[in-house]
Amino acid sequence: MIVILKPDASEEKRSRLIGWLKEQGVEVHISQGAYQTVLGLIGDASHIDRDLVAGLDIVDSVKTVTEPFKCCSRRSHPDDTVVEVGGVKIGGGHFCMIAGPCSVESEEQIVAVARSVKASGAQLLRGGAFKPRTSPYDFQGLKADGLALLKMAGRETGLPIVSEVMAASDLPLFEDVDVIQIGARNMQNFDLLREVGKLRKPVLLKRGMASTAKELLMSAEYIMAGGNEQVILCERGIRTFDDCTRNTLDLAVVPVLHELTHLPVIVDPSHATGAAKLVRPMALAAAACGADGLMIEVHNDPLHALCDGAQALRPEEYDKLAGEVRRVRQVTAK
Amino acid sequence: MIVILKPDASEEKRSRLIGWLKEQGVEVHISQGAYQTVLGLIGDASHIDRDLVAGLDIVDSVKTVTEPFKCCSRRSHPDDTVVEVGGVKIGGGHFCMIAGPCSVESEEQIVAVARSVKASGAQLLRGGAFKPRTSPYDFQGLKADGLALLKMAGRETGLPIVSEVMAASDLPLFEDVDVIQIGARNMQNFDLLREVGKLRKPVLLKRGMASTAKELLMSAEYIMAGGNEQVILCERGIRTFDDCTRNTLDLAVVPVLHELTHLPVIVDPSHATGAAKLVRPMALAAAACGADGLMIEVHNDPLHALCDGAQALRPEEYDKLAGEVRRVRQVTAK
Amino acid sequence: MIVILKPDASEEKRSRLIGWLKEQGVEVHISQGAYQTVLGLIGDASHIDRDLVAGLDIVDSVKTVTEPFKCCSRRSHPDDTVVEVGGVKIGGGHFCMIAGPCSVESEEQIVAVARSVKASGAQLLRGGAFKPRTSPYDFQGLKADGLALLKMAGRETGLPIVSEVMAASDLPLFEDVDVIQIGARNMQNFDLLREVGKLRKPVLLKRGMASTAKELLMSAEYIMAGGNEQVILCERGIRTFDDCTRNTLDLAVVPVLHELTHLPVIVDPSHATGAAKLVRPMALAAAACGADGLMIEVHNDPLHALCDGAQALRPEEYDKLAGEVRRVRQVTAK
Amino acid sequence: MIVILKPDASEEKRSRLIGWLKEQGVEVHISQGAYQTVLGLIGDASHIDRDLVAGLDIVDSVKTVTEPFKCCSRRSHPDDTVVEVGGVKIGGGHFCMIAGPCSVESEEQIVAVARSVKASGAQLLRGGAFKPRTSPYDFQGLKADGLALLKMAGRETGLPIVSEVMAASDLPLFEDVDVIQIGARNMQNFDLLREVGKLRKPVLLKRGMASTAKELLMSAEYIMAGGNEQVILCERGIRTFDDCTRNTLDLAVVPVLHELTHLPVIVDPSHATGAAKLVRPMALAAAACGADGLMIEVHNDPLHALCDGAQALRPEEYDKLAGEVRRVRQVTAK
Repeated sequence: MIVILKPDASEEKRSRLIGWLKEQGVEVHISQGAYQTVLGLIGDASHIDRDLVAGLDIVDSVKTVTEPFKCCSRRSHPDDTVVEVGGVKIGGGHFCMIAGPCSVESEEQIVAVARSVKASGAQLLRGGAFKPRTSPYDFQGLKADGLALLKMAGRETGLPIVSEVMAASDLPLFEDVDVIQIGARNMQNFDLLREVGKLRKPVLLKRGMASTAKELLMSAEYIMAGGNEQVILCERGIRTFDDCTRNTLDLAVVPVLHELTHLPVIVDPSHATGAAKLVRPMALAAAACGADGLMIEVHNDPLHALCDGAQALRPEEYDKLAGEVRRVRQVTAK
Repeated sequence: MIVILKPDASEEKRSRLIGWLKEQGVEVHISQGAYQTVLGLIGDASHIDRDLVAGLDIVDSVKTVTEPFKCCSRRSHPDDTVVEVGGVKIGGGHFCMIAGPCSVESEEQIVAVARSVKASGAQLLRGGAFKPRTSPYDFQGLKADGLALLKMAGRETGLPIVSEVMAASDLPLFEDVDVIQIGARNMQNFDLLREVGKLRKPVLLKRGMASTAKELLMSAEYIMAGGNEQVILCERGIRTFDDCTRNTLDLAVVPVLHELTHLPVIVDPSHATGAAKLVRPMALAAAACGADGLMIEVHNDPLHALCDGAQALRPEEYDKLAGEVRRVRQVTAK
Repeated sequence: MIVILKPDASEEKRSRLIGWLKEQGVEVHISQGAYQTVLGLIGDASHIDRDLVAGLDIVDSVKTVTEPFKCCSRRSHPDDTVVEVGGVKIGGGHFCMIAGPCSVESEEQIVAVARSVKASGAQLLRGGAFKPRTSPYDFQGLKADGLALLKMAGRETGLPIVSEVMAASDLPLFEDVDVIQIGARNMQNFDLLREVGKLRKPVLLKRGMASTAKELLMSAEYIMAGGNEQVILCERGIRTFDDCTRNTLDLAVVPVLHELTHLPVIVDPSHATGAAKLVRPMALAAAACGADGLMIEVHNDPLHALCDGAQALRPEEYDKLAGEVRRVRQVTAK
Repeated sequence: MIVILKPDASEEKRSRLIGWLKEQGVEVHISQGAYQTVLGLIGDASHIDRDLVAGLDIVDSVKTVTEPFKCCSRRSHPDDTVVEVGGVKIGGGHFCMIAGPCSVESEEQIVAVARSVKASGAQLLRGGAFKPRTSPYDFQGLKADGLALLKMAGRETGLPIVSEVMAASDLPLFEDVDVIQIGARNMQNFDLLREVGKLRKPVLLKRGMASTAKELLMSAEYIMAGGNEQVILCERGIRTFDDCTRNTLDLAVVPVLHELTHLPVIVDPSHATGAAKLVRPMALAAAACGADGLMIEVHNDPLHALCDGAQALRPEEYDKLAGEVRRVRQVTAK
């Protein structure tokens, strides 16, 4: 850790700060420049509260020399991580199409959607069994039954499956789920992150609605610090003043994350926009800016078929889009 | 539920929607106005996905007639809820001062701070034992040991204690903690909310950094739906573009919440601003606009004493502020 | 205008509101439904303050039946507007590449950049002469001299030119400027909008940093209401909590605007991201999601050449990107 | 200006940067520390583009040693500025109540409101004659006629008047207006700021909806750099994701600004919240946290009288509030 003092820091306060730092068990190297005094902390400074020091009135700023993210940093691991799941590769040039309904509703529904998206080239099947709902009175998903149906559809089609876990205590039910999804609202549920860090299967970690790229990486770090290195990051829109879409899809975070980390980065245009008609343009944009995959909602239920509905695509719309995404990838992938 | 159709909705799509709604087990009353067709759903419509219907292209908007929050709504319960904890009352005209250090660090520290804030008029002692930290490498709190020290300080001073829980599996450790705090990052950890809903002790629920007032109430509803009606809401700043403070303290939410709910609403100016020098003006403002209490960080450690530090107040600063808050309450409380 | 009353609106208040509305010179048609009372205002209601009515405690919501944007609405003008400038077409399937330096600095600089971007396929030359700077002490642009140099470079290369105007009183200097740019900070400078509405030359209107899509269209409407129908809209990033880029590029607004309006929509990835390395991915994404053009900063000055600098591309980077953009257009343009 | 280089900056790039800086006419003092190389620029560096240098890939950060705000900085002018207008003082312990209708509508209306607010203790009369409206089709104010009526009401009651100017070309009409208001949408209309900087009468500068405290100060600096030192800053809410009020009132900016600047800071709770029932609690909060004044909308028109309307207070509500504000000031003013 490096502590840069303010030019007008008094000698007395400076000494007291240096004394306190030494009491914490680090050596302090003082570098006196013409414009600034810089304190270099030598030794293990990890237990010293960075914010506490940064808040002192004689301190200009604090810099951490060692990367705050150790496992997920591109610096420590220059090559792209390729996550493998049931023969499907994600990252490092391997683009992955994940598709399926928002919620698993019935055997008929999930199997039909699974077959359809597989035929269109999807490599993973998604489906929600435990649904994070703002209201306790809204449908919370079919839970264990939903997972069972999803597994059945996975077996039927040979597609590996992805589903969201909301509580550490439900993890035993996810034994046969190929990729564990952590939703945006749980991105900083550190307890849950630690638990999935103990697993040895891929985790799809969605960015929180008000989280920065660095906070997303820190949450990935919680998982990786436990030894689970198969983390897939997912941008799904952030919360802003903007009301033209449900959330604001922040595509620039894709190249920003690719610079900071070796982990694959996918995009969910369905939840980000909340509108089927915006899924196509945003999916193409995500493919063009280098995303490693797309997670898209596809439905086949009668209400949706009734009209152009909500955020899910009809199977034929998804099929057309999948082809376009492949063509964009052909002309933009490095 | 009321579904307002668009003026140009085709007869055919309208019939199909009505058919689908009936299949869901509700009766549909059609009210044909000069400008709009309104479908009134009669019967239990709680399993019908509001967002799904609202997203259809023939639907203008969907309104829920029954309050989405049943337990916490002011409409269903006009009188203020007064939460009681160890003889201390919060809400319904009872103003509560909660104070203590950010983290419990040692017996000496927590007991000294507890004595000091009690002498200044604080009625509850706060102290973090499980700390939600963005980085897995940062200090995570003293955990069970921290809780033990906090309880000791509570017994020593007679102050009931408040501490944050981060995982349902840790709840057994909180048996002697008087008020369970749910932090901002866990405001939509629905599993944890359900678990504390099974308790019969007060829960202090902090607003998420990107949560609306209605989402905060929905999270309170998760707790109350479990039978635990002792919920205290806490505004602690939201995330905005604004960089002059750590978060933007949204004081208008205090009267907004008081209109919507009967639950007490307190304010945490320490975390919201992240700066000791802003705690006083924001605490006075919160008292002036009708908050039911204040949660303020107070420290007595040498690094802070060294300079004006970070977000915690020195005991003597807190003492002065407590007096000012009382005077503001005298001239503003209705 | 349609006024939807709350279910519990008292008869007395209802009558008073209806009376007041009639005094404003409109007829009021009362449609009494089973669930809601709807007042339909017949006649010219344009002088009635929508917000005022919406704020009344007996009013649930107010809807404007006639489009709030008359000239720029897709509904009133289904075909895409194609803006033409010096033989270059923008919109309606015509994609336009606009490039040039942030500021005009010298004859040598602007001519060199103009030649270079023309060779790469750019069709319009941009260059700032009047610079909106947060600080009055920062470089404010070469002003009239800058415009003269820009015109010279335009003549030399045959490229039409684009430059930003900041004050109505400077408009006479822009007589030979082919496209007048209104910057993000002036998007709601209604006086300036009205003035450029009197011109008969294309206006490039940038979205304000905290403006919604509808507010952008309303500002276009100010220009078009004056009779100037050649408006090009430009997304350039919005202000959010997110700190990984200077602004958050909101690409979903491109298809949203295309649905609402017939005006062309271009994207400026340089100002949005503030980082040269992000310009390429965001430019490709913008092309993929259907933007009608790109405005990109290109430099050839020694400081930038020194290292990978700030937000402008080097000529060779721009050349490569222009080719990629064309290929993305080939596979995505409808 | 101080340029802090990254630890891994190559010798060659470093030399090239230093060479370029010298070409710009400054001397460069190199301070080589153990952890960082710091370049100190000696001489006038004001024409060097800070952002350009900060964006270079070998540069860690750039710091400006001299305050970016010269005239409005507390450092350069430690004592509070007291703005005087017609015998009324604002700032430096003088609290100012500004009140009046949103728009001037008629002689009867403005005179009645003026008399009423004067009786309640208001010291300045506000009233809009030029209204910034999102839509060109909305009521734009009575313009010159509105100003004439406002002046008449001012003369009648002896209250100095405040009104918003939207274009430099309208300034001649404001000759007898005592305080010129610059609205939030024009906070970065630098041309208009420069024009009011040439006047020698108080300017009330409202914070832009997406502007930081420093940007607000920079805009004040534009006015003061022209020689007009009578600037009153006004917080009126910022744009955030939060939908419980029209804008999010950022009260913490009041003490933040008081630390950074000597200029008075007032608060407009009417526009910030958009709801009459929130004006009282937010006005009391603003007074409690040290604001130097309040600008509040008061109406006496029949539609508002009809129900609790929109954002303006009834005269009797304002009267009661004014008394409460005085009592809060008595117990909180330092």
